[in-house]
Amino acid sequence: MSAGETLDRYRSLILDGLREALAGETQLREILRYHVGMADAQGNPANAFGKLLRPSLVLMTAEGLGAEARNALGAAVALELVHNFSLIHDDIQDRDDVRRGRPTVWSLHGIAEAINAGDLMLTIAMAVGIESGAPIAGALARAVDRMVEGQSLDLQFESRVVATDQYLEMVDRKTGALLSCALELGGLCAHAGPAVVALLIGLGRSIGRAFQIQDDLLGVWGDGDVVGKPQGSDIRRRKKSFPIAMAFARSSGQDREQLEAVFAAPAADGAGNEEDVCDADVSWVIELLDRLDVRLEGEKAVTAYHAEALVAIEALPFVSEIAEEMRALVERLAGRVR
Amino acid sequence: MSAGETLDRYRSLILDGLREALAGETQLREILRYHVGMADAQGNPANAFGKLLRPSLVLMTAEGLGAEARNALGAAVALELVHNFSLIHDDIQDRDDVRRGRPTVWSLHGIAEAINAGDLMLTIAMAVGIESGAPIAGALARAVDRMVEGQSLDLQFESRVVATDQYLEMVDRKTGALLSCALELGGLCAHAGPAVVALLIGLGRSIGRAFQIQDDLLGVWGDGDVVGKPQGSDIRRRKKSFPIAMAFARSSGQDREQLEAVFAAPAADGAGNEEDVCDADVSWVIELLDRLDVRLEGEKAVTAYHAEALVAIEALPFVSEIAEEMRALVERLAGRVR
Repeated sequence: MSAGETLDRYRSLILDGLREALAGETQLREILRYHVGMADAQGNPANAFGKLLRPSLVLMTAEGLGAEARNALGAAVALELVHNFSLIHDDIQDRDDVRRGRPTVWSLHGIAEAINAGDLMLTIAMAVGIESGAPIAGALARAVDRMVEGQSLDLQFESRVVATDQYLEMVDRKTGALLSCALELGGLCAHAGPAVVALLIGLGRSIGRAFQIQDDLLGVWGDGDVVGKPQGSDIRRRKKSFPIAMAFARSSGQDREQLEAVFAAPAADGAGNEEDVCDADVSWVIELLDRLDVRLEGEKAVTAYHAEALVAIEALPFVSEIAEEMRALVERLAGRVR
Repeated sequence: MSAGETLDRYRSLILDGLREALAGETQLREILRYHVGMADAQGNPANAFGKLLRPSLVLMTAEGLGAEARNALGAAVALELVHNFSLIHDDIQDRDDVRRGRPTVWSLHGIAEAINAGDLMLTIAMAVGIESGAPIAGALARAVDRMVEGQSLDLQFESRVVATDQYLEMVDRKTGALLSCALELGGLCAHAGPAVVALLIGLGRSIGRAFQIQDDLLGVWGDGDVVGKPQGSDIRRRKKSFPIAMAFARSSGQDREQLEAVFAAPAADGAGNEEDVCDADVSWVIELLDRLDVRLEGEKAVTAYHAEALVAIEALPFVSEIAEEMRALVERLAGRVR
C-alpha cells in the first residue's frame, strides 16, 4: 500500500474527530473551522483539509504497535489541532496572506482576532489531549513547548549568523517536535515501553531533519511545478535556511562580507513590512551556493537522515505491513531529492 | 485578618512555584520571567510581581474547605500562568506599551516574539496543570476556552451596539472565567462535591461582575489617585463598558444618534492605531451618562453582585476564619463604590 493510500485510510476517522472537537456556535469557533478547511469564509461546509500527516502518523504508529487506531484518535486529533494552532500564529508572524490557496485567518479577521483563534485552537487541543489521559497530555505539552521555543529561535536567527548545528537544533524543535510527538503519542496509545518510545522520538527527529533540509533546498533551487516554490524564494525573504547556514560556514573574505550584507535585516516600515532581497542579490547568492557545493552537501544530509529513519523503522517492533507503509511515508516526506 | 495580609500569607509559596515553573535558559523563558516581574529587562532578579490574586484565591479556597494550601500549589501556579498568558496577548491586541509601570513584552521584543511568549506561558501553565491531575487540567482548559471566547466577544463589541445582557455575558467570560476557575480549582484540590463546586463557580461569577462593573465606572468617572484612571479614559478609547451599554439601552432620538456616531469605529492608520475620541465628545458622553442616571444604576449593580457574593460565601462550608477573609477580599475587589 502506498503512503498516500495509508493516509486516506485514516482520513474519515480523523475528520470526524476534528468536527467534534471544533463544534460550537461562536464566531471564533467558526474561524477555527474555516482555518482547518471544514468551512468556507461564510461558514458553509467545505472540504479544504490539509494532508493530515501528523494525526495519520499517530494512528499508523499505534496500529503498527498492536493498538486499534480508534483508541489513538483523541491523541491524533489533539496533535492536528496543535499543528493548526501553530499555523494560525505563524501566519501572523510571517505576515503570510495565503495558506493552501486560501486567505489566512489574520488577513480576514485582523491580528487581534487571529491571536485569539490560535489561542483557542491550542486550548481545545489541550482539552482533547487531557481527555486522552495525563501521559498523552503531558507529551503534547512538552512538544508544544519545544515547538514554540523553536519558533523563537527561528526569529532570533533572523538577526544573526547561524551555524549548521544551531540550525539543526532549531529544526529539531520547530519541525521535529510535532513529528516526534506524533510517533510518541502513537507509542503511548499502544502502551509501548520507554525504549520503543525513545526510538520513536528519534525517528521523528530524523524525518524532521530530512524533510526540512529538503524543503530548504527547494526554497533555494525551486522544484518546477511540484510544490510551487519559485527559485530563490527563501533567499528573497532572507530565511536562514540550511543552505545559507552552510554558506556562512564555508565562505570567507569578500564573499562572506557580501553574504552578511545581503542577509542583514533591513529596516521595516511602520506596518512591519521588510523590503525583499533584490533579484541581482538573489542570483549572486545562488551562484555563491553553487560555487560552495552547498546543494550537494544538502542532498547528502537528506540522504543520511533518510537512511537514519529507515534504520529506526527496522529497529522498531512494527507489524510488517505498517513497517512497509512507514518506509513509503518516509520516502515521500524525506526521500532523496534526486 | 485583612484581605491584604491574607494574600501576603501565600506570597512566598506562590513565588517559589512560579520560579520553578519558569526556570530554563532560553531567551523566551527570560521574557516570561520578565513579564511576571521576577526579572528585569536585562535578566537580573527583580521584585515587580502583581497582586497574585487568582493563585491566592485558589489556596485560600482549598484551605477554607479543609485542604492544605501546599496541595493546591500546582493548580494555583498554573492559573497564575494562564492569567499572565492572557496579559501578554492582551497587550498586543490593545497595543498597550506599559503594564504595571513597565514596558510590555511586545513593545520590547516585537509582536512575533510576544505571540511566542504568550503561547509558551499558556503551554507551561497547561503542563503544570496536567501534573496536578486531569480534573485540575480539565477545569483550567475550560476556563481558558471561556476567557478566550470572551476576548473575542469584546473585540466584536468594538464594532456594534451592545445590550447589557450581552455585556454581562462577555464579562462572565473575560473576567469571570478565571475568578470562577480559581475558586473551582481550590474546591477540586479539597475534593469538594459537585454542589459545592457549583456554588464556588457562581461566587466567582458574582465577584467578576461586581469587580468589572466597578472598574468600568472608574474608567468613566475616574477615582482621583487610587487606581490612576483619569476621568473618561475608557470613553476616549471607545470601550463598550457597562455604562456605555446602559446608555445605548436608555437613550433615544438625537442622543442615541450622537452616541452611535461617537462610538462608531474610526479608520485605523497603517500601523493599526485608531484616533481617540476628542475631549468635547468625551465630555458630552459623560454629561449624557449623568442625565441618564447610569452611574447610579452601575453602583446598584455592583452592590447587588457584591451582596450575591456574600450570600454564596455564607452558603459555602468554609472554616470561619477563611469565610471572614473571603468577605474581606470580596469587599476589597468588589466593594460598593461609595
